[in-house]
Amino acid sequence: MDDRLKKQLDFALEIDKEKNIFRQTHLSGHGRNENDAEHAWHMAIMAYLLREYSNEKVDIAKVMLMCLIHDIVEIDAGDTYAYDTEGLATQKTREDAAKERIFSMLPADQKEELISLFDEFEEFSTAESKFAHAMDNLQPIILNNSNGGSDWKEHNATAEAIYSRHNKTRLGSEKLFAVTDAIIQDNIRKGNLS
Amino acid sequence: MDDRLKKQLDFALEIDKEKNIFRQTHLSGHGRNENDAEHAWHMAIMAYLLREYSNEKVDIAKVMLMCLIHDIVEIDAGDTYAYDTEGLATQKTREDAAKERIFSMLPADQKEELISLFDEFEEFSTAESKFAHAMDNLQPIILNNSNGGSDWKEHNATAEAIYSRHNKTRLGSEKLFAVTDAIIQDNIRKGNLS
Repeated sequence: MDDRLKKQLDFALEIDKEKNIFRQTHLSGHGRNENDAEHAWHMAIMAYLLREYSNEKVDIAKVMLMCLIHDIVEIDAGDTYAYDTEGLATQKTREDAAKERIFSMLPADQKEELISLFDEFEEFSTAESKFAHAMDNLQPIILNNSNGGSDWKEHNATAEAIYSRHNKTRLGSEKLFAVTDAIIQDNIRKGNLS
Repeated sequence: MDDRLKKQLDFALEIDKEKNIFRQTHLSGHGRNENDAEHAWHMAIMAYLLREYSNEKVDIAKVMLMCLIHDIVEIDAGDTYAYDTEGLATQKTREDAAKERIFSMLPADQKEELISLFDEFEEFSTAESKFAHAMDNLQPIILNNSNGGSDWKEHNATAEAIYSRHNKTRLGSEKLFAVTDAIIQDNIRKGNLS
Protein backbone atom coordinates (compact mmCIF):
# COMPACT_ATOMS: atom_id res chain seq x y z
CA MET A 1 0.00 0.00 0.00
CA ASP A 2 1.38 3.44 -0.83
CA ASP A 3 2.25 5.88 1.93
CA ARG A 4 -0.56 8.33 1.12
CA LEU A 5 -3.33 5.73 1.38
CA LYS A 6 -1.76 4.23 4.51
CA LYS A 7 -1.85 7.63 6.21
CA GLN A 8 -5.48 8.16 5.22
CA LEU A 9 -6.51 4.77 6.58
CA ASP A 10 -4.52 5.25 9.80
CA PHE A 11 -6.35 8.54 10.31
CA ALA A 12 -9.69 6.86 9.57
CA LEU A 13 -8.97 4.28 12.26
CA GLU A 14 -7.77 6.92 14.74
CA ILE A 15 -10.96 8.98 14.59
CA ASP A 16 -12.94 5.89 15.61
CA LYS A 17 -11.95 7.01 19.13
CA GLU A 18 -14.32 9.97 18.88
CA LYS A 19 -17.14 7.50 19.57
CA ASN A 20 -15.81 7.15 23.11
CA ILE A 21 -15.94 10.87 23.93
CA PHE A 22 -19.17 11.48 25.82
CA ARG A 23 -20.98 14.79 26.16
CA GLN A 24 -23.23 16.18 28.87
CA THR A 25 -26.28 15.91 26.60
CA HIS A 26 -28.52 12.85 26.91
CA LEU A 27 -30.28 11.11 24.04
CA SER A 28 -34.03 11.61 23.67
CA GLY A 29 -36.23 9.26 25.70
CA HIS A 30 -34.02 10.04 28.76
CA GLY A 31 -31.31 7.89 27.19
CA ARG A 32 -27.60 7.63 27.88
CA ASN A 33 -25.10 10.42 27.32
CA GLU A 34 -24.47 11.24 23.69
CA ASN A 35 -21.01 10.87 22.16
CA ASP A 36 -19.21 13.29 19.86
CA ALA A 37 -19.50 11.17 16.70
CA GLU A 38 -23.28 10.84 17.03
CA HIS A 39 -23.59 14.55 17.79
CA ALA A 40 -21.59 15.41 14.66
CA TRP A 41 -23.68 13.04 12.50
CA HIS A 42 -26.88 14.61 13.80
CA MET A 43 -25.60 18.18 13.23
CA ALA A 44 -24.58 17.42 9.64
CA ILE A 45 -28.01 16.07 8.68
CA MET A 46 -29.76 18.94 10.44
CA ALA A 47 -27.52 21.43 8.63
CA TYR A 48 -28.57 19.97 5.30
CA LEU A 49 -32.30 19.92 6.09
CA LEU A 50 -32.39 23.36 7.71
CA ARG A 51 -30.02 25.20 5.35
CA GLU A 52 -32.89 27.35 4.04
CA TYR A 53 -32.88 29.15 7.42
CA SER A 54 -29.25 30.28 7.29
CA ASN A 55 -29.05 34.09 7.40
CA GLU A 56 -26.51 34.00 4.59
CA LYS A 57 -26.15 31.67 1.63
CA VAL A 58 -23.81 28.79 2.57
CA ASP A 59 -21.77 26.13 0.80
CA ILE A 60 -23.67 23.27 2.43
CA ALA A 61 -21.04 20.60 1.68
CA LYS A 62 -18.53 22.72 3.57
CA VAL A 63 -20.93 23.20 6.49
CA MET A 64 -21.57 19.45 6.67
CA LEU A 65 -17.87 18.56 6.63
CA MET A 66 -17.23 21.23 9.27
CA CYS A 67 -19.95 19.68 11.46
CA LEU A 68 -18.51 16.20 10.96
CA ILE A 69 -14.93 17.10 11.99
CA HIS A 70 -15.42 19.93 14.51
CA ASP A 71 -14.99 17.71 17.59
CA ILE A 72 -12.13 15.44 16.44
CA VAL A 73 -9.69 17.28 18.73
CA GLU A 74 -11.71 16.03 21.72
CA ILE A 75 -10.21 12.56 21.16
CA ASP A 76 -7.20 13.96 23.08
CA ALA A 77 -8.63 17.07 24.72
CA GLY A 78 -11.91 15.57 25.99
CA ASP A 79 -15.30 17.25 25.95
CA THR A 80 -15.45 20.60 27.73
CA TYR A 81 -18.96 21.31 28.99
CA ALA A 82 -20.24 24.60 27.61
CA TYR A 83 -20.76 25.99 31.13
CA ASP A 84 -17.58 24.61 32.79
CA THR A 85 -15.56 27.82 33.33
CA GLU A 86 -12.48 26.00 34.68
CA GLY A 87 -12.29 23.63 31.72
CA LEU A 88 -12.92 26.45 29.29
CA ALA A 89 -9.79 28.27 30.54
CA THR A 90 -7.45 25.50 29.31
CA GLN A 91 -9.57 24.30 26.39
CA LYS A 92 -7.69 26.12 23.64
CA THR A 93 -4.23 24.86 24.70
CA ARG A 94 -5.47 21.28 24.98
CA GLU A 95 -7.29 21.41 21.66
CA ASP A 96 -4.38 23.01 19.79
CA ALA A 97 -2.05 20.16 20.78
CA ALA A 98 -4.69 17.61 19.81
CA LYS A 99 -5.29 19.29 16.47
CA GLU A 100 -1.60 19.12 15.60
CA ARG A 101 -1.20 15.48 16.62
CA ILE A 102 -4.34 14.07 15.05
CA PHE A 103 -4.46 15.92 11.74
CA SER A 104 -0.72 15.30 11.24
CA MET A 105 -1.60 11.66 10.63
CA LEU A 106 -3.03 12.71 7.24
CA PRO A 107 -1.07 13.49 4.07
CA ALA A 108 0.14 17.13 4.21
CA ASP A 109 -2.49 18.54 1.83
CA GLN A 110 -5.37 16.96 3.74
CA LYS A 111 -3.87 17.95 7.10
CA GLU A 112 -3.77 21.54 5.92
CA GLU A 113 -7.30 21.40 4.52
CA LEU A 114 -8.89 19.93 7.64
CA ILE A 115 -7.01 22.20 10.04
CA SER A 116 -8.11 25.16 7.97
CA LEU A 117 -11.72 23.99 8.15
CA PHE A 118 -11.44 23.34 11.89
CA ASP A 119 -9.93 26.82 12.44
CA GLU A 120 -12.65 28.39 10.34
CA PHE A 121 -15.27 26.79 12.58
CA GLU A 122 -13.48 28.04 15.71
CA GLU A 123 -13.03 31.57 14.35
CA PHE A 124 -16.79 31.91 13.84
CA SER A 125 -16.54 34.54 11.12
CA THR A 126 -17.70 32.96 7.85
CA ALA A 127 -21.32 32.20 6.91
CA GLU A 128 -20.54 28.46 7.01
CA SER A 129 -19.02 28.56 10.49
CA LYS A 130 -21.90 30.63 11.86
CA PHE A 131 -24.45 28.17 10.53
CA ALA A 132 -22.42 25.18 11.77
CA HIS A 133 -22.31 26.78 15.24
CA ALA A 134 -26.08 27.26 15.09
CA MET A 135 -26.36 23.47 14.57
CA ASP A 136 -23.87 22.83 17.41
CA ASN A 137 -26.29 24.74 19.67
CA LEU A 138 -29.64 23.62 18.24
CA GLN A 139 -28.92 19.88 18.15
CA PRO A 140 -28.41 19.42 21.92
CA ILE A 141 -31.19 21.84 22.86
CA ILE A 142 -33.83 19.84 20.99
CA LEU A 143 -32.67 16.66 22.74
CA ASN A 144 -32.62 18.35 26.13
CA ASN A 145 -36.03 19.96 25.55
CA SER A 146 -37.47 16.55 24.60
CA ASN A 147 -36.22 15.30 27.98
CA GLY A 148 -37.97 18.07 29.94
CA GLY A 149 -34.79 20.14 30.30
CA SER A 150 -33.15 17.44 32.45
CA ASP A 151 -29.60 18.33 31.35
CA TRP A 152 -30.12 21.87 32.62
CA LYS A 153 -31.72 20.74 35.86
CA GLU A 154 -28.81 18.37 36.51
CA HIS A 155 -26.32 21.25 36.21
CA ASN A 156 -28.49 23.91 37.90
CA ALA A 157 -28.05 25.95 34.74
CA THR A 158 -29.08 29.60 34.74
CA ALA A 159 -31.02 31.29 31.96
CA GLU A 160 -28.22 33.85 31.77
CA ALA A 161 -25.55 31.22 31.03
CA ILE A 162 -27.79 29.46 28.54
CA TYR A 163 -28.57 32.67 26.67
CA SER A 164 -24.92 33.67 26.64
CA ARG A 165 -24.22 30.58 24.54
CA HIS A 166 -27.38 30.39 22.49
CA ASN A 167 -27.56 34.08 21.59
CA LYS A 168 -24.83 33.23 19.06
CA THR A 169 -27.26 31.01 17.17
CA ARG A 170 -28.80 34.21 15.78
CA LEU A 171 -25.51 34.97 13.99
CA GLY A 172 -26.16 31.86 11.89
CA SER A 173 -29.94 31.88 11.77
CA GLU A 174 -32.43 34.40 13.14
CA LYS A 175 -35.22 31.94 12.41
CA LEU A 176 -33.62 29.10 14.38
CA PHE A 177 -32.73 31.47 17.18
CA ALA A 178 -36.44 32.23 17.52
CA VAL A 179 -37.03 28.47 18.04
CA THR A 180 -34.23 28.37 20.61
CA ASP A 181 -35.61 31.40 22.41
CA ALA A 182 -39.08 29.82 22.61
CA ILE A 183 -37.56 26.62 24.05
CA ILE A 184 -35.55 28.53 26.67
CA GLN A 185 -38.54 30.68 27.68
CA ASP A 186 -40.70 27.58 28.01
CA ASN A 187 -38.09 25.91 30.23
CA ILE A 188 -37.84 29.04 32.40
CA ARG A 189 -41.64 28.97 32.87
CA LYS A 190 -41.48 25.32 33.86
CA GLY A 191 -38.73 25.98 36.42
CA ASN A 192 -36.07 23.95 34.58
CA LEU A 193 -33.79 26.98 34.41
CA SER A 194 -33.16 29.42 37.25
CA MET B 1 -43.64 28.02 14.54
CA ASP B 2 -44.72 27.33 10.96
CA ASP B 3 -45.70 23.84 9.87
CA ARG B 4 -42.67 23.31 7.61
CA LEU B 5 -40.12 24.06 10.32
CA LYS B 6 -42.07 22.01 12.87
CA LYS B 7 -41.95 18.99 10.55
CA GLN B 8 -38.22 19.42 10.01
CA LEU B 9 -37.54 19.62 13.75
CA ASP B 10 -39.81 16.64 14.49
CA PHE B 11 -37.83 14.63 11.94
CA ALA B 12 -34.54 15.83 13.46
CA LEU B 13 -35.69 14.58 16.86
CA GLU B 14 -36.97 11.27 15.44
CA ILE B 15 -33.65 10.33 13.86
CA ASP B 16 -31.98 10.62 17.27
CA LYS B 17 -33.24 7.04 17.68
CA GLU B 18 -30.68 5.82 15.15
CA LYS B 19 -28.09 6.12 17.95
CA ASN B 20 -29.79 3.17 19.64
CA ILE B 21 -29.51 0.81 16.66
CA PHE B 22 -26.45 -1.35 17.25
CA ARG B 23 -24.48 -3.21 14.61
CA GLN B 24 -22.43 -6.40 14.74
CA THR B 25 -19.20 -4.43 14.32
CA HIS B 26 -17.20 -3.53 17.42
CA LEU B 27 -15.27 -0.30 17.93
CA SER B 28 -11.48 -0.42 17.68
CA GLY B 29 -9.66 -1.36 20.88
CA HIS B 30 -12.08 -4.30 21.30
CA GLY B 31 -14.76 -1.78 22.29
CA ARG B 32 -18.53 -2.05 22.45
CA ASN B 33 -20.79 -2.61 19.43
CA GLU B 34 -21.00 0.33 17.08
CA ASN B 35 -24.30 2.08 16.41
CA ASP B 36 -25.70 3.20 13.07
CA ALA B 37 -25.24 6.94 13.65
CA GLU B 38 -21.54 6.55 14.46
CA HIS B 39 -21.08 4.24 11.49
CA ALA B 40 -22.69 6.79 9.17
CA TRP B 41 -20.56 9.62 10.58
CA HIS B 42 -17.41 7.57 10.04
CA MET B 43 -18.40 6.62 6.48
CA ALA B 44 -19.10 10.23 5.50
CA ILE B 45 -15.69 11.46 6.65
CA MET B 46 -13.95 8.51 5.00
CA ALA B 47 -15.84 9.19 1.76
CA TYR B 48 -14.56 12.75 1.75
CA LEU B 49 -10.94 11.83 2.51
CA LEU B 50 -10.79 8.86 0.12
CA ARG B 51 -12.79 10.33 -2.79
CA GLU B 52 -9.68 10.37 -5.00
CA TYR B 53 -9.92 6.56 -5.15
CA SER B 54 -13.43 6.42 -6.59
CA ASN B 55 -13.41 4.65 -9.97
CA GLU B 56 -15.66 7.37 -11.35
CA LYS B 57 -15.86 11.08 -10.56
CA VAL B 58 -18.45 11.64 -7.80
CA ASP B 59 -20.48 14.52 -6.39
CA ILE B 60 -18.93 14.19 -2.95
CA ALA B 61 -21.62 16.20 -1.12
CA LYS B 62 -24.18 13.74 -2.46
CA VAL B 63 -22.06 10.75 -1.39
CA MET B 64 -21.66 12.20 2.11
CA LEU B 65 -25.39 12.84 2.52
CA MET B 66 -26.13 9.35 1.21
CA CYS B 67 -23.75 7.90 3.80
CA LEU B 68 -25.35 9.96 6.57
CA ILE B 69 -28.94 8.87 5.84
CA HIS B 70 -28.53 5.34 4.44
CA ASP B 71 -29.40 3.56 7.71
CA ILE B 72 -32.26 5.77 8.97
CA VAL B 73 -34.82 3.06 8.07
CA GLU B 74 -33.16 0.80 10.66
CA ILE B 75 -34.83 2.90 13.38
CA ASP B 76 -37.91 0.76 12.67
CA ALA B 77 -36.45 -2.17 10.72
CA GLY B 78 -33.43 -2.86 12.93
CA ASP B 79 -29.93 -3.76 11.75
CA THR B 80 -29.75 -6.82 9.53
CA TYR B 81 -26.35 -8.48 9.79
CA ALA B 82 -24.73 -8.76 6.37
CA TYR B 83 -24.46 -12.55 6.68
CA ASP B 84 -27.87 -13.23 8.33
CA THR B 85 -29.73 -15.01 5.48
CA GLU B 86 -33.03 -15.25 7.39
CA GLY B 87 -33.09 -11.54 8.23
CA LEU B 88 -32.05 -10.64 4.71
CA ALA B 89 -35.17 -12.35 3.29
CA THR B 90 -37.55 -9.89 5.02
CA GLN B 91 -35.22 -6.89 5.04
CA LYS B 92 -36.71 -5.09 2.05
CA THR B 93 -40.33 -5.28 3.28
CA ARG B 94 -39.36 -4.06 6.74
CA GLU B 95 -37.21 -1.24 5.37
CA ASP B 96 -39.82 -0.07 2.84
CA ALA B 97 -42.41 0.41 5.59
CA ALA B 98 -39.86 2.24 7.72
CA LYS B 99 -38.82 4.47 4.84
CA GLU B 100 -42.41 5.55 4.26
CA ARG B 101 -43.13 6.26 7.93
CA ILE B 102 -39.94 8.08 8.82
CA PHE B 103 -39.38 10.24 5.75
CA SER B 104 -43.09 11.19 5.73
CA MET B 105 -42.38 13.28 8.81
CA LEU B 106 -40.55 15.76 6.55
CA PRO B 107 -42.15 18.40 4.29
CA ALA B 108 -43.13 16.75 0.97
CA ASP B 109 -40.19 18.11 -1.07
CA GLN B 110 -37.62 16.90 1.46
CA LYS B 111 -39.38 13.56 1.88
CA GLU B 112 -39.14 13.05 -1.86
CA GLU B 113 -35.51 14.15 -1.98
CA LEU B 114 -34.34 11.89 0.83
CA ILE B 115 -36.30 8.86 -0.37
CA SER B 116 -34.82 9.37 -3.80
CA LEU B 117 -31.32 9.49 -2.30
CA PHE B 118 -32.02 6.44 -0.15
CA ASP B 119 -33.33 4.51 -3.17
CA GLU B 120 -30.33 5.54 -5.22
CA PHE B 121 -28.06 4.07 -2.56
CA GLU B 122 -30.06 0.83 -2.51
CA GLU B 123 -30.15 0.53 -6.30
CA PHE B 124 -26.35 0.59 -6.46
CA SER B 125 -26.17 1.92 -10.00
CA THR B 126 -24.78 5.47 -9.89
CA ALA B 127 -21.15 6.40 -9.25
CA GLU B 128 -22.17 8.01 -5.94
CA SER B 129 -24.02 4.93 -4.68
CA LYS B 130 -21.17 2.64 -5.66
CA PHE B 131 -18.65 4.74 -3.77
CA ALA B 132 -20.98 5.06 -0.75
CA HIS B 133 -21.34 1.25 -0.72
CA ALA B 134 -17.54 0.94 -0.83
CA MET B 135 -17.46 3.04 2.36
CA ASP B 136 -20.24 0.94 3.92
CA ASN B 137 -17.94 -2.07 3.43
CA LEU B 138 -14.56 -0.51 4.14
CA GLN B 139 -15.49 1.24 7.39
CA PRO B 140 -16.40 -1.91 9.38
CA ILE B 141 -13.58 -3.97 7.87
CA ILE B 142 -10.89 -1.60 9.12
CA LEU B 143 -12.41 -1.70 12.63
CA ASN B 144 -12.69 -5.49 12.57
CA ASN B 145 -9.16 -5.87 11.22
CA SER B 146 -7.83 -3.63 14.00
CA ASN B 147 -9.49 -6.04 16.45
CA GLY B 148 -7.77 -9.11 14.98
CA GLY B 149 -10.83 -10.15 12.98
CA SER B 150 -12.84 -10.79 16.16
CA ASP B 151 -16.22 -9.97 14.53
CA TRP B 152 -15.60 -12.69 11.93
CA LYS B 153 -14.39 -15.20 14.51
CA GLU B 154 -17.52 -14.57 16.63
CA HIS B 155 -19.78 -15.41 13.68
CA ASN B 156 -17.62 -18.24 12.23
CA ALA B 157 -17.62 -16.26 8.99
CA THR B 158 -16.37 -17.91 5.82
CA ALA B 159 -14.06 -16.28 3.30
CA GLU B 160 -16.66 -17.04 0.64
CA ALA B 161 -19.41 -15.06 2.41
CA ILE B 162 -17.05 -12.19 3.14
CA TYR B 163 -15.88 -11.98 -0.46
CA SER B 164 -19.44 -12.16 -1.74
CA ARG B 165 -20.13 -8.87 0.06
CA HIS B 166 -16.78 -7.16 -0.33
CA ASN B 167 -16.30 -7.97 -4.02
CA LYS B 168 -18.81 -5.16 -4.62
CA THR B 169 -16.34 -2.66 -3.20
CA ARG B 170 -14.49 -2.89 -6.50
CA LEU B 171 -17.53 -1.40 -8.28
CA GLY B 172 -16.86 1.80 -6.31
CA SER B 173 -13.09 1.66 -6.03
CA GLU B 174 -10.59 -0.82 -7.46
CA LYS B 175 -7.89 0.72 -5.26
CA LEU B 176 -9.86 0.29 -2.04
CA PHE B 177 -10.90 -3.21 -3.06
CA ALA B 178 -7.18 -4.06 -3.21
CA VAL B 179 -6.88 -2.92 0.43
CA THR B 180 -9.93 -5.02 1.36
CA ASP B 181 -8.54 -8.05 -0.45
CA ALA B 182 -5.23 -7.75 1.39
CA ILE B 183 -7.06 -7.55 4.73
CA ILE B 184 -9.21 -10.61 3.95
CA GLN B 185 -6.20 -12.63 2.76
CA ASP B 186 -4.27 -11.71 5.90
CA ASN B 187 -7.20 -12.83 8.07
CA ILE B 188 -7.46 -16.13 6.19
CA ARG B 189 -3.75 -16.74 6.80
CA LYS B 190 -4.24 -16.02 10.52
CA GLY B 191 -7.18 -18.43 10.74
CA ASN B 192 -9.76 -15.73 11.51
CA LEU B 193 -11.83 -16.76 8.48
CA SER B 194 -12.60 -20.32 7.46
